[in-house]
Amino acid sequence: MKKLNILVCNDDGITSKGIYELVKKLKEIANVTVVAPISEQSAVGHAITMKNPLRIKEIFINNEFFGYAIDGTPADCVKIGIKNILNYKPDLVISGINNGANTAINIIYSGTVSGAREAAIMDIQAIAISLTSHTPTHYDVAAQIACEYALKLYENPLPSGTLLNINVPDCPFDDINGYLFTKQGKSKWNDDYEERIDPFGYKYYWLKGDWIECDADIQYDHVATKKNYVSLTPIHFDLTDYSALEKYKHIFEKK
Amino acid sequence: MKKLNILVCNDDGITSKGIYELVKKLKEIANVTVVAPISEQSAVGHAITMKNPLRIKEIFINNEFFGYAIDGTPADCVKIGIKNILNYKPDLVISGINNGANTAINIIYSGTVSGAREAAIMDIQAIAISLTSHTPTHYDVAAQIACEYALKLYENPLPSGTLLNINVPDCPFDDINGYLFTKQGKSKWNDDYEERIDPFGYKYYWLKGDWIECDADIQYDHVATKKNYVSLTPIHFDLTDYSALEKYKHIFEKK
Repeated sequence: MKKLNILVCNDDGITSKGIYELVKKLKEIANVTVVAPISEQSAVGHAITMKNPLRIKEIFINNEFFGYAIDGTPADCVKIGIKNILNYKPDLVISGINNGANTAINIIYSGTVSGAREAAIMDIQAIAISLTSHTPTHYDVAAQIACEYALKLYENPLPSGTLLNINVPDCPFDDINGYLFTKQGKSKWNDDYEERIDPFGYKYYWLKGDWIECDADIQYDHVATKKNYVSLTPIHFDLTDYSALEKYKHIFEKK
Repeated sequence: MKKLNILVCNDDGITSKGIYELVKKLKEIANVTVVAPISEQSAVGHAITMKNPLRIKEIFINNEFFGYAIDGTPADCVKIGIKNILNYKPDLVISGINNGANTAINIIYSGTVSGAREAAIMDIQAIAISLTSHTPTHYDVAAQIACEYALKLYENPLPSGTLLNINVPDCPFDDINGYLFTKQGKSKWNDDYEERIDPFGYKYYWLKGDWIECDADIQYDHVATKKNYVSLTPIHFDLTDYSALEKYKHIFEKK
């Protein structure tokens, strides 16, 4: 079998442990090119940089060339990585390994998912992979699963524009109950802002949130991971609410 | 009829002409509170600010209080506006008037749409409104349509989590052919980066893109506006690709 060409990005930044462990494992099956943000870009959503230029910096880890750092977002990294660094379309783009689940509403805010989605927009098969803990201990499990599903996705491509969003419970391999093909859940944050006073006497506000569990069925991504299943969700970028389209047409349309 | 309570945000910044014209018109039918970014936030997608605090600044225009400026994203503005400024849920959130269409793939990158989507996530009826030109001349037309659809949406709320994405052709009222309830189109950008050299001799890269027209039917948002229709698209935040869910389950699922 030919060695795959894989572009790897993330949102935690090029020096994070998650991307390092992912790349180390992927090199067993692929030619890997790393293009990732120079600084942490969590919760940047699908931001792209238009009003400022980008720069490309070569990064070495333990005296070995590791990859290219960009002073931009995950979506920027995928765009410039393919257009100006690789200069060809890779077989696959993998974004991660993220610290923290990208399930339910978090998919909307996620920089990790937006990196993979930018690849899907460019018609390239893509995976976003996250561990459910914010301080994970089982990168090796997620890296192994990323390898397995990279090969599976290469053999069985999803429709153009659709990516595979993988969420892995942060536990040893033996504790994983299986792999479920899930839907994005409806669970979300009830956010609030804590009012504080800075050393100069001025007010500032800091986001804090409580998670509201809205789903109970294991067919939803977040519930599946809670029950120690790996959650695999096919997501795309068509945001049309088709059920509303039929039902409300007569109210809103005027000719 | 009771006067509506409307929160207005945008992504072009609190001092932009689009938000000023929108607020002026909306005040005829509503109590309006403006909470908008202090600086331009185009193409920020659904970014939120987590790792830094936010500040709230009162803004005066022509010696009159206009609204609250936030050093964050459109989604931040809606969150903090409702939680810490209004302290109650408004009847409606309106985001705009944006300079430039938010149709097809642009919906993914749009800060304007993400402001309205944050409201939809919070279970509040919401409108995103954009003019198709990047240098619009008919803000009055879009502001009038925003008023009309604010009242219509208040009387006929969309399902929880769904917002109305309105795109208005930049032309006089008499040239508008009608109002169509549309789908998000598939048209997208073929992006590239121009390599340049800074005054110190270092390379930098600037995004540039060509629009690829993928849709022809007037049922798609971008096509409708090209034909001088106002495009009204119901969009939500469930990104699950349901057609792939059925078709690929047997390939990816393992128990």
